[in-house]
Amino acid sequence: MTDTVALGAIERRLRELGLELPEPLVAPEGARFNFLLVNVWGNIAFVAGHGATDGSRILAEGRVGEDVTPEQAYEAARLTGLSILASLKRELGELDRVTRWLRATGYVNAVPGFKGNAGVVNGFSDLIVELWGDAGRHARSAPGAGSLPYNIPVVIEAMVEVA
Amino acid sequence: MTDTVALGAIERRLRELGLELPEPLVAPEGARFNFLLVNVWGNIAFVAGHGATDGSRILAEGRVGEDVTPEQAYEAARLTGLSILASLKRELGELDRVTRWLRATGYVNAVPGFKGNAGVVNGFSDLIVELWGDAGRHARSAPGAGSLPYNIPVVIEAMVEVA
Amino acid sequence: MTDTVALGAIERRLRELGLELPEPLVAPEGARFNFLLVNVWGNIAFVAGHGATDGSRILAEGRVGEDVTPEQAYEAARLTGLSILASLKRELGELDRVTRWLRATGYVNAVPGFKGNAGVVNGFSDLIVELWGDAGRHARSAPGAGSLPYNIPVVIEAMVEVA
Repeated sequence: MTDTVALGAIERRLRELGLELPEPLVAPEGARFNFLLVNVWGNIAFVAGHGATDGSRILAEGRVGEDVTPEQAYEAARLTGLSILASLKRELGELDRVTRWLRATGYVNAVPGFKGNAGVVNGFSDLIVELWGDAGRHARSAPGAGSLPYNIPVVIEAMVEVA
Repeated sequence: MTDTVALGAIERRLRELGLELPEPLVAPEGARFNFLLVNVWGNIAFVAGHGATDGSRILAEGRVGEDVTPEQAYEAARLTGLSILASLKRELGELDRVTRWLRATGYVNAVPGFKGNAGVVNGFSDLIVELWGDAGRHARSAPGAGSLPYNIPVVIEAMVEVA
Repeated sequence: MTDTVALGAIERRLRELGLELPEPLVAPEGARFNFLLVNVWGNIAFVAGHGATDGSRILAEGRVGEDVTPEQAYEAARLTGLSILASLKRELGELDRVTRWLRATGYVNAVPGFKGNAGVVNGFSDLIVELWGDAGRHARSAPGAGSLPYNIPVVIEAMVEVA
């Protein structure tokens, strides 16, 4: 018997995919979070905007189409998904309590005229669908931002159903 | 007896206004939609970001204040509303099942310093209120985007009540 | 007996903080609001994007990092909060009917590469938490906008629980 016995279905799936959750997001030095990263209200959890982070460490920086390629931004969106999962696990105890993904907005910090926003945010949506299957499919927008906190390339916020 | 007998109230009103729904949005060539255009959850439908499209064809392109005038962008916002209705009809079968509009965000792909975002997004809100009356009035934001997928001028997402 | 007897807890707290609500937002000259500033649906109120306003008068204008400093933008975000409260009071009659803050998006009209979005939107979140305590803590995103209506520095939209 190993500790995997205690793992829920989503965390087992994460392991199968060779993925690990980062440390949950905490405010970077000099910043102050007076808001909630996850706000559970009845059977909905509102997830604040997250970036690609490991604890307070920012894993990707720069504007897409300038310092960051679309491929790197796709990867940053995927890491952003893992950071969101780390916050959800901290709040809910268990990722299996997320029973459905409802909606998400993926803000892409891109140069004017950039056309590939949707492809970038696929990095997030692909991860969620790999883990939750059809229950992971969500309504989504992928607007370009004029700037993002800490000049990170992607910020994603979401609403999920929780049990 | 004509086929209008079978039309719901909203589609009759569309006809009276001389409007036709476009083909429902499908991913443009080279793109991949791993998300839902409409995600129904209980009595809420979350509508993904849409643009002015007819099937996979994009009907308006460019930045407002540069390639696109505010008037053209207003029209694009109106066409975006029709594209959203096409997706809702495909998902729900019948537009009358949308019983109330709750909120929308209209992202306007405009040059820095552009002030007319709200007027642009009126193209969407006017259409919805023409069709649904007071039940169409929704809370709304109209932020400028730094860029938008496929360099389209307007993207609109929404939440509606469904019966 | 003074009129303070009739004030709810939140308005008493506003007074203690030396704050006054502005006149509720009405459309600036030349603009047309065909949407709702507050849309109450069951026990949720959807709050449209607001700026720092007093009636139809716009109290802050300009882009952050160019015409507006981060400190001025923080203050504009705080004033935006007060404008939202004025709309909520007009709609609900009494601010105590807002029993919990669920989520907010704060759009910051900033120059490309601006990193301080989160600090700017703290101006709003700090106000709400000063007034509502833990019930004021909300999930939040703070994306940079490419432009904002009337070239204002900050727009904030929200969802709240109402009783």
